[in-house]
Amino acid sequence: MTTALLPEGLRDRLPPQADAAAAILRAALDAIRAHGYERVAPPLAEYEESLVGRLKTSAARDLLRVADPLSQRTLALRPDITTQVGRIAATRLAHRPRPLRLSYGGPVMKLRASQLRPEREMTQIGAELVGRDSATAAAEIVALAVEALAATGATGITVDLTLPDLVDTLAAGPLPLRPSQAAQVRALLDAKDAGGLAASGAASYLPLIEAAGPFADALERLRAFDTNGILDRRLAALETIATRLEGMAEVTLDPTERHGFEYQSWLGFSLFADGLTGEIGRGGTYTILHEDGHEEPAVGFSIYPDPLLDVRADEQPSRRLFLPLGHDPDLAARLRGEGWVTVAALDERCDGAGCTHHLVAGEVQPPT
Amino acid sequence: MTTALLPEGLRDRLPPQADAAAAILRAALDAIRAHGYERVAPPLAEYEESLVGRLKTSAARDLLRVADPLSQRTLALRPDITTQVGRIAATRLAHRPRPLRLSYGGPVMKLRASQLRPEREMTQIGAELVGRDSATAAAEIVALAVEALAATGATGITVDLTLPDLVDTLAAGPLPLRPSQAAQVRALLDAKDAGGLAASGAASYLPLIEAAGPFADALERLRAFDTNGILDRRLAALETIATRLEGMAEVTLDPTERHGFEYQSWLGFSLFADGLTGEIGRGGTYTILHEDGHEEPAVGFSIYPDPLLDVRADEQPSRRLFLPLGHDPDLAARLRGEGWVTVAALDERCDGAGCTHHLVAGEVQPPT
Repeated sequence: MTTALLPEGLRDRLPPQADAAAAILRAALDAIRAHGYERVAPPLAEYEESLVGRLKTSAARDLLRVADPLSQRTLALRPDITTQVGRIAATRLAHRPRPLRLSYGGPVMKLRASQLRPEREMTQIGAELVGRDSATAAAEIVALAVEALAATGATGITVDLTLPDLVDTLAAGPLPLRPSQAAQVRALLDAKDAGGLAASGAASYLPLIEAAGPFADALERLRAFDTNGILDRRLAALETIATRLEGMAEVTLDPTERHGFEYQSWLGFSLFADGLTGEIGRGGTYTILHEDGHEEPAVGFSIYPDPLLDVRADEQPSRRLFLPLGHDPDLAARLRGEGWVTVAALDERCDGAGCTHHLVAGEVQPPT
Repeated sequence: MTTALLPEGLRDRLPPQADAAAAILRAALDAIRAHGYERVAPPLAEYEESLVGRLKTSAARDLLRVADPLSQRTLALRPDITTQVGRIAATRLAHRPRPLRLSYGGPVMKLRASQLRPEREMTQIGAELVGRDSATAAAEIVALAVEALAATGATGITVDLTLPDLVDTLAAGPLPLRPSQAAQVRALLDAKDAGGLAASGAASYLPLIEAAGPFADALERLRAFDTNGILDRRLAALETIATRLEGMAEVTLDPTERHGFEYQSWLGFSLFADGLTGEIGRGGTYTILHEDGHEEPAVGFSIYPDPLLDVRADEQPSRRLFLPLGHDPDLAARLRGEGWVTVAALDERCDGAGCTHHLVAGEVQPPT
């Protein structure tokens, strides 16, 4: 029947998945909150032009638009919360001392689903550290992303680090490129196209293709490549981050990976976990544009945790205690206080189906 | 600057209100969950025609519409989650045994704000007990509404009970009215217009105006009015509910109040709390229409908790512990496990401003 059909990419979450989704959101935000990040909650929709002004070009093409008879303007549903948090940091919280630690969690909506993510409505959770983008600040954010992800039950977490402005840095220094050539070299490095690089007269960039993989080895190759020491500070920062992640996550380095990091400054990272296809989150350093035109450094991450619902180890089914007609309500309240979920009989027909335990003569018992 | 302005009725929640809003949502849903209600999470938007088909007429006029190039159809943002839960109960969960206990919590969006509620995006939290609308089922739901509301920190809770189909019941029995007259009598009773009632030849309904107020007295007057005993079961059900609420909430009775309860069956109720203008929640009995045309009884409630943010006693400011450069990360993790919020220094400039405590030589100390 038509009324039961939902639009493509939108769906109902049923028990027990809806409870699990709420538990994931809570666990991640609790982990983030414990590190001093304060919650902000921007609205689900804003003026389209306001969102477009702050979004990356690609995301601005992907907005669901809302006609608003009240303002007689077009609103758009937020496809991303990070940009809203940037707006808040640059306006209403511009007066707050830096570093400013903010967190958020809630739904976002996109016009189109992607191949990896068939959903158009998804949960986004994240944290932004505003006013710093140092190695220490970046290490705090990357480690916090891993801790938040681990709190949701994800296992086998891998962090892939990248240096989004690496080619620009080298091209402006020891390995000069013409502007048109730089774009080509970036594309060839993205594609790991060694032959193309050599043919395009940028053979000096070839070693970067090999400087990818498990962190320690990749870093060593990158250091050997950086004979001028122009990357010294970057490499030291990467080491600070990798050291912080010891025992928390596997770390890999793919220094020239730029896909999706076009708006990051010196650092980008992707998060992966066991059992998931594709990344579960990402982050990096960036700048926030203030109203007076000045730019402020920031570093942050976002997790899109919905796919975790399919890979988390099966939850322990909750202990559901059946309360027969005429039970003692004070005892029931006490048992709820101890963590029991109680299900009260409403009439003689109720027999406690679906309950793991029954309350019999004031005693909790397994069902007979 | 234009980009900082939000549309009317939409706003950013900042610290500490955003954290408090999340805590309210969590507390209410935890209280509901402990009584065996399982979470469902319908999408933020559905096909407009599907939402309109299930919404009350008035709510259907109040939809924010979304153009969806993907389906080439019009979607609408949900103005209410209850109707979505009804859809789920009637379709994907139609096979689940009854009574079925479901809960939900999340944002809803309306085209227009109301005078009492200037927000167009608001949080809705609720529970639905599907398959029963008995006195016991209603008492469970009303008591659960009060418990959930109390869990959010609301105090001085009052429940106002009403009997939405009272006039219809009387008109079909001992106090016959013509159909056109019945509508007029309902309106006059809503307006407590004694003169109008007498003038319209419905003086026999006059005692109902007096049968309102604190529960015990109002019930007594209603019982004295019901000389034929035709309301016996209703009055007994109201007593069951009021008895359940003893020690939890003040109870009042306004048997002819119909405003906003047009789609409730025998019971409606409104929730009030200290310091709030207008009701903070409402609920009642109703029927869910299944795909094969049969109707199923249900009882439920919704709370719209956002105004509580303005009246809750000031939160204890969280204990924020400043961690200097070079602190012991294991100790910091242990302190977070004990409930501390930690704020790590990022550089020499960080001086722990905004922190209530400092970690000095491995010891937690008040700031100097």
